[in-house]
Amino acid sequence: MYNEKLLREATALFPEIKKNKINECKCIDLKKDGDVIKRDPRPAYESIALKKDDSIILDFEDHYVGYLSLDLGYEGAHPDSPVLLRIRFAEREIELFEDASEYKGWVSPAWIEEEIIHVDIVPSVVKLDRRYSFRYVRIEVVDISSRFSLRVNDASLTAVSSAPDEALLPYYSSNELDREIDRVAVKTLHDCMQTVFEDGPKRDRRLWIGDLRIQALVNYVTYNMNDMVKSNLYLFGALTQEDGRVGACIFLDPKPEVDDTNMFDYSLFFIVILRDYYKRTGDKKAVLDLFDVCKRQIQLASNSLDERHVVRDSDVLGWCFVDWNLALNKQASAQGIFMYALEAAIELAQCVGDVLAEEEYAQLYLKLKEASNRFLYDVEKKLYVSGAESQISFASQIWMVLGGAMEGKAAERLFDRMEACPEAVTMVTPYMYHNYIDALIKIGKKDVAHRKMSKYWGGMVANSADTFWELYNPEKPNESPYGGTIVNSYCHAWSCGPAYFLRTYFNDTKDES
Amino acid sequence: MYNEKLLREATALFPEIKKNKINECKCIDLKKDGDVIKRDPRPAYESIALKKDDSIILDFEDHYVGYLSLDLGYEGAHPDSPVLLRIRFAEREIELFEDASEYKGWVSPAWIEEEIIHVDIVPSVVKLDRRYSFRYVRIEVVDISSRFSLRVNDASLTAVSSAPDEALLPYYSSNELDREIDRVAVKTLHDCMQTVFEDGPKRDRRLWIGDLRIQALVNYVTYNMNDMVKSNLYLFGALTQEDGRVGACIFLDPKPEVDDTNMFDYSLFFIVILRDYYKRTGDKKAVLDLFDVCKRQIQLASNSLDERHVVRDSDVLGWCFVDWNLALNKQASAQGIFMYALEAAIELAQCVGDVLAEEEYAQLYLKLKEASNRFLYDVEKKLYVSGAESQISFASQIWMVLGGAMEGKAAERLFDRMEACPEAVTMVTPYMYHNYIDALIKIGKKDVAHRKMSKYWGGMVANSADTFWELYNPEKPNESPYGGTIVNSYCHAWSCGPAYFLRTYFNDTKDES
Repeated sequence: MYNEKLLREATALFPEIKKNKINECKCIDLKKDGDVIKRDPRPAYESIALKKDDSIILDFEDHYVGYLSLDLGYEGAHPDSPVLLRIRFAEREIELFEDASEYKGWVSPAWIEEEIIHVDIVPSVVKLDRRYSFRYVRIEVVDISSRFSLRVNDASLTAVSSAPDEALLPYYSSNELDREIDRVAVKTLHDCMQTVFEDGPKRDRRLWIGDLRIQALVNYVTYNMNDMVKSNLYLFGALTQEDGRVGACIFLDPKPEVDDTNMFDYSLFFIVILRDYYKRTGDKKAVLDLFDVCKRQIQLASNSLDERHVVRDSDVLGWCFVDWNLALNKQASAQGIFMYALEAAIELAQCVGDVLAEEEYAQLYLKLKEASNRFLYDVEKKLYVSGAESQISFASQIWMVLGGAMEGKAAERLFDRMEACPEAVTMVTPYMYHNYIDALIKIGKKDVAHRKMSKYWGGMVANSADTFWELYNPEKPNESPYGGTIVNSYCHAWSCGPAYFLRTYFNDTKDES
Repeated sequence: MYNEKLLREATALFPEIKKNKINECKCIDLKKDGDVIKRDPRPAYESIALKKDDSIILDFEDHYVGYLSLDLGYEGAHPDSPVLLRIRFAEREIELFEDASEYKGWVSPAWIEEEIIHVDIVPSVVKLDRRYSFRYVRIEVVDISSRFSLRVNDASLTAVSSAPDEALLPYYSSNELDREIDRVAVKTLHDCMQTVFEDGPKRDRRLWIGDLRIQALVNYVTYNMNDMVKSNLYLFGALTQEDGRVGACIFLDPKPEVDDTNMFDYSLFFIVILRDYYKRTGDKKAVLDLFDVCKRQIQLASNSLDERHVVRDSDVLGWCFVDWNLALNKQASAQGIFMYALEAAIELAQCVGDVLAEEEYAQLYLKLKEASNRFLYDVEKKLYVSGAESQISFASQIWMVLGGAMEGKAAERLFDRMEACPEAVTMVTPYMYHNYIDALIKIGKKDVAHRKMSKYWGGMVANSADTFWELYNPEKPNESPYGGTIVNSYCHAWSCGPAYFLRTYFNDTKDES
């Protein structure tokens, strides 16, 4: 399905990409001893004459998304052959210790940020035309004629983002770690803000709805680029799949197009993002424009209900995302997310004055809630269960609480039992962790939420994160489910939520007021 | 030394580069069985969906110098990762059977015509911005997401050359092989004609004086781009080395500059090229502009004479080129080449009316001639000898004859003894072979010259040469002194001489007239 009018509105709101030239970088040496990376300074790169097999590592001292430019010179005889360079970009130091040619993981190695380029003319300014996400750059002379040496006279990067630095709202806190987590979270959002809210500027580089929900929330308390949220909502609304389903992600190039992937939870989050957007902006016209899309998502999700009003489980891989965990059964989470989306849909129906829809959704919500507690709740274990094997997981409890199946003290006790349940499937991604923090705050456990957040995201900070990561396992910070850190996305939108939590719930000014 | 005025004249005469779009190419399959390459047709490339590790070989059915453009599409799901391509260009099929990553030869592997590129957006038109010299292109999908396949919808090349196709003089011959050799020789010149007369468009890509001498001769009987010869002479004249010596080659980028290499013979050939140019064009002003440069070359060469008027031998690698053969002693050849250049210098002195110089050179010539026959001629073996070890070589006899140390019937008998001398060091390059043909014609052995030329250059034609090669050993056509055919230059200017010989001496029309 393709709505030309909505698409025009979406693209008309595409933000300007701001450029920021970064000239400062340090030349460093890195050595790895077991798990420890040792860093030593090197002389200024301009002073180093590079022969075959020589290399330099440049550290731009923060994470950036942008374009690299190298001003190359030489010493010795006039260059009499091209220079062959291998240029590797890395978000974290650890990536530089992996050999791209040996990468055998399942993520496409085409994502590895490495180029092998010929430089035909030296001296010259080489501007790499691809965009990279990085802090470190290693420049290796794979080959050069023996008659001359290469010099990097100047290395600079043009960082790009649509985030308006001057408009960033301040954050007040006497807690240093909170300030640090906020700073890294905001930088994460900043670097993911390009033409759209990208999931990660290194890998995928696309508008995914799961990331957008969190990015939009952080945006409202930081850069306030609300038109960008609107643009992205209109993109999803304009480019639905054949049956009118909101797709999981949108490609921008060569022209905006929806992916053929869809996920039960992601389609429903469209409604939630629109509700959040409306609450922040009061933009009723947007709700009027997009409410039909929301209604269709409810309809499609309803088709997945069995006669008991329970979301039918599925063994289709990725039918519902929830968390990056194939062992996690998604049924109960899907039920909770449907309720969570229905609450948003009711608010939107009220907004547009669609009384029939409001009434229908309210009744459906009650049926889902009743079914949740009747069919997905294990009265003995006193925990929500999911799937044919009655799996217990953090995700199921969290989404049932966020969806309102259980509330107040009962929900608090539910969480206590969940934490004490050794068999409960735990969380894998910062994305799922975000929902956990959200649920803890919802049930009034603000202190626990803060402590958990400080520990989890603070762990990345302690591991020198400049931006928050797509995946973080506190036990194994350098773990990669893809078979190599070189394809891990270390600046990933779904991890930027702490700035939203901190600025909304853990703000000194607010506490004092 | 830097002569701004001459340089301005040189660059003002740079030719226009003509573009020619080539859309036709065949998709082929190549297999190698021992030394034999088996070629099979494949379906049209547009019909082939490429997954990871798939490749296609395109045959543009002639040698070209130019730029490749690929119109890429896909089938399957929307591309969700970049595509990583390895693109290899080859002048001959054999090159495609070598692995670039395993090349360990002494020529810089940066010359290997292979790119590894990321294509971020599909569909898109990918225009590679480097210039390549090739007939074959292999496109290999190193990596692609499993969700889609790549299609090459269109492959085209924009061939470039400054040769004016419409101005090519016709060549008449009833001899089919002569016509074929002429065609390939002209194509060789054509593809080497760019902003300057390049030695080879694949490797070096520079203006070398040794190649220029032969290119200019062929040019006069084919494209008549005489201003281009003039431009190149002015470049060498404008950009001499510190002592006023004409360098062996000129770099054009980023700005015209002389190489620090010089060779005894190459510096002297400047005079010969100017004389040839003057004889063809009558451009006396050019001779007036450049005669001082010629005089300086004679002066510098004279400094290399010992008190007997014999060119001092040297053990400096490459002090005098003559042939690509380190085992060849160059002394006697250098002596012959000095005489050869003196003859040209005398003609130029006459042209500009420099009577003193004319007289001086005439006397010097006689002294050199006398010294040649007194000190470099072995009266027992009746052959010219070179160096402390009195080495006998084809090169020494050839250059003594071309320099006029021996003439007429005596020279004819000298060549008979040379051919019959088993210890005589033979020739390695088509470049030296060119001088051999030239000398045979000079001594009146036109038929032998024709037979030798037909056999040697015809051997390349029999080996499917589209253009003539830098190196050709009839015993081992695929030999590479560089450790890999992938760095052999298979379109090399110094091999284009047959078109000059054929059109000057073996032209039916001329014979009949």
